[in-house]
Amino acid sequence: MRIILDGMGGDHAPAEIVKGAVSAASEIKDEIFIVGDPAAIENQLEKCKYKGNQIQIVPAHEVITMHDSPVKAIRNKKDSSLVVGLNMLKDGKGDMFVSAGNTGALIVGSRLILGRIKGIDRPALASIYPDMTGGDPCLLVDAGASSESKARNLLEYGLMGSIYVEKVWGRDNPRVGLVNLGAEEGKGTSAIKEAYQMLESSYLNFIGNVEGRDVPKGVCDVIVCDGFTGNVILKLTEGVSLSIFKLIKDTLKSNVKAMMGGALIKSKLSDLKDEFDYEEYGGAPVLGVAGPVIKMHGSSTERAVKSAILRGLPYAEENVVEIIKQEMTEIAECIEEE
Amino acid sequence: MRIILDGMGGDHAPAEIVKGAVSAASEIKDEIFIVGDPAAIENQLEKCKYKGNQIQIVPAHEVITMHDSPVKAIRNKKDSSLVVGLNMLKDGKGDMFVSAGNTGALIVGSRLILGRIKGIDRPALASIYPDMTGGDPCLLVDAGASSESKARNLLEYGLMGSIYVEKVWGRDNPRVGLVNLGAEEGKGTSAIKEAYQMLESSYLNFIGNVEGRDVPKGVCDVIVCDGFTGNVILKLTEGVSLSIFKLIKDTLKSNVKAMMGGALIKSKLSDLKDEFDYEEYGGAPVLGVAGPVIKMHGSSTERAVKSAILRGLPYAEENVVEIIKQEMTEIAECIEEE
Repeated sequence: MRIILDGMGGDHAPAEIVKGAVSAASEIKDEIFIVGDPAAIENQLEKCKYKGNQIQIVPAHEVITMHDSPVKAIRNKKDSSLVVGLNMLKDGKGDMFVSAGNTGALIVGSRLILGRIKGIDRPALASIYPDMTGGDPCLLVDAGASSESKARNLLEYGLMGSIYVEKVWGRDNPRVGLVNLGAEEGKGTSAIKEAYQMLESSYLNFIGNVEGRDVPKGVCDVIVCDGFTGNVILKLTEGVSLSIFKLIKDTLKSNVKAMMGGALIKSKLSDLKDEFDYEEYGGAPVLGVAGPVIKMHGSSTERAVKSAILRGLPYAEENVVEIIKQEMTEIAECIEEE
Repeated sequence: MRIILDGMGGDHAPAEIVKGAVSAASEIKDEIFIVGDPAAIENQLEKCKYKGNQIQIVPAHEVITMHDSPVKAIRNKKDSSLVVGLNMLKDGKGDMFVSAGNTGALIVGSRLILGRIKGIDRPALASIYPDMTGGDPCLLVDAGASSESKARNLLEYGLMGSIYVEKVWGRDNPRVGLVNLGAEEGKGTSAIKEAYQMLESSYLNFIGNVEGRDVPKGVCDVIVCDGFTGNVILKLTEGVSLSIFKLIKDTLKSNVKAMMGGALIKSKLSDLKDEFDYEEYGGAPVLGVAGPVIKMHGSSTERAVKSAILRGLPYAEENVVEIIKQEMTEIAECIEEE
């Protein structure tokens, strides 16, 4: 595989991106192209004492920042690491694109440059969501690529998420759940009611509606929701968790007696914090575009970049994009027959 | 004031409802009518050794359960405590209705029996939402009365919530925030973008968009969102909090060393749990219907019932329904003039 890495995207680019690449390269045989400012990347490679030829630099002289408007940036910054990287993927000069850059620009760029998979109405951004009961995390789709979703889009999210979790994470028969305001069938908006029926009659392992209180309990492998709800779920989970952590931390600080138990609880809390930690799981896919694209968190450091590359590799190796393409063709045929 | 209390609604009816009424009666001079099975209520009043005449029993021989379909229940169970109570309010035989019964039935019944306030397109269910940084809680509207909202509905939620928080909770110039997927103007669904403009140009103290991560941080007094999002926010907050509490509890249990600090942290945790505790704040209003209706949590016990009555009283005393009515008339006139 040839991994294309956005050398300039994210808060800690290019230093941490390059470090992550070097770190990943030591564990795989695949090639890594780092796209971006050649001098800065070269400089960082030297700092890492990297001497191999598994990592190569692809020059790109512009940078899309977090403040750039996605559509404008993709149109105007043709020589940015993000646009150059996506064009490489499109032109077959690499097999997967990994970026910690501007999320909106990455989604828009993926759509405009790679195009949608035929049959997919709306590409989606996935996100890793923790199981707070201690199990493996799940994949939330859509994390905010679109703010409104039709029933069909929700079905697509379930389908793409299920294929990804099966092929990339290696889980058999992933359980797909639909975020809703009640557990019973027949609840929710008209789009959600319709999506329920579509998911129910699909071949997916659909477990039904998932209420907000069950979202953090690892009840399914793929959490399906519109991008607005997905965004609220991700940010609210972060907000509530951090508020509680802060409260407990303050309690520990404020009282010497509590300090003894404190260390233990702190380590347990930090375990839980790791669950939200993109470092561990690396990145999440942009789904529904005609090429494997992995989005890393903007604040990704060496470990996160390494994880994103290593854990994301099966997205390219297992030909997940091709599998989604085939599924969509079959589904389209089924719909036509009906 | 004459408070009408649904004696048969909720998990612990009528025992805890009656206890709460007795407890509230000792602190106020207002009359309380408990609606429901006369024998059961009489029996509980005796157990409470209640001998006054401030509390009166109004017979109703049916009960709407949690499993009843709201619309059917309101139509068919005419002699239920919920329907009898709402009819009393409508007929001027009381000034406020308080119930821990079937939420859907209470909302539907309020709409059908009391009717909407003229100008209000969609009544809403409010809910109390904690400030996890330790401040006073805020009011979330809509908590799930409608699953879809137009821009106009969101404006109404903000308006009614603001009036309620000002008049019933006594907060000046309540800050109103709109749940959205980004802080900047111009984000979100088309309904939300439009609602932003309407809230911005209203006389409300609109602070703009509130992202999921800021929802638990007490950044506003009134959180405005559609009922679907509101339901997810409330249940997810509960799910995430309880998961973290459980994890910490398990840690405390599992290790003797941790036990010393444990007691302190436990008490702090329980403080935080109280924030979610309906006992303390009692109930939340059904807004937009032509009479003051307070919804208590289904699991309300004595303390919750007492709080709901005492804290809810200004909803009737301050004529909040009348104020909303006037505001809506003025707004309608403004719209006509435009």
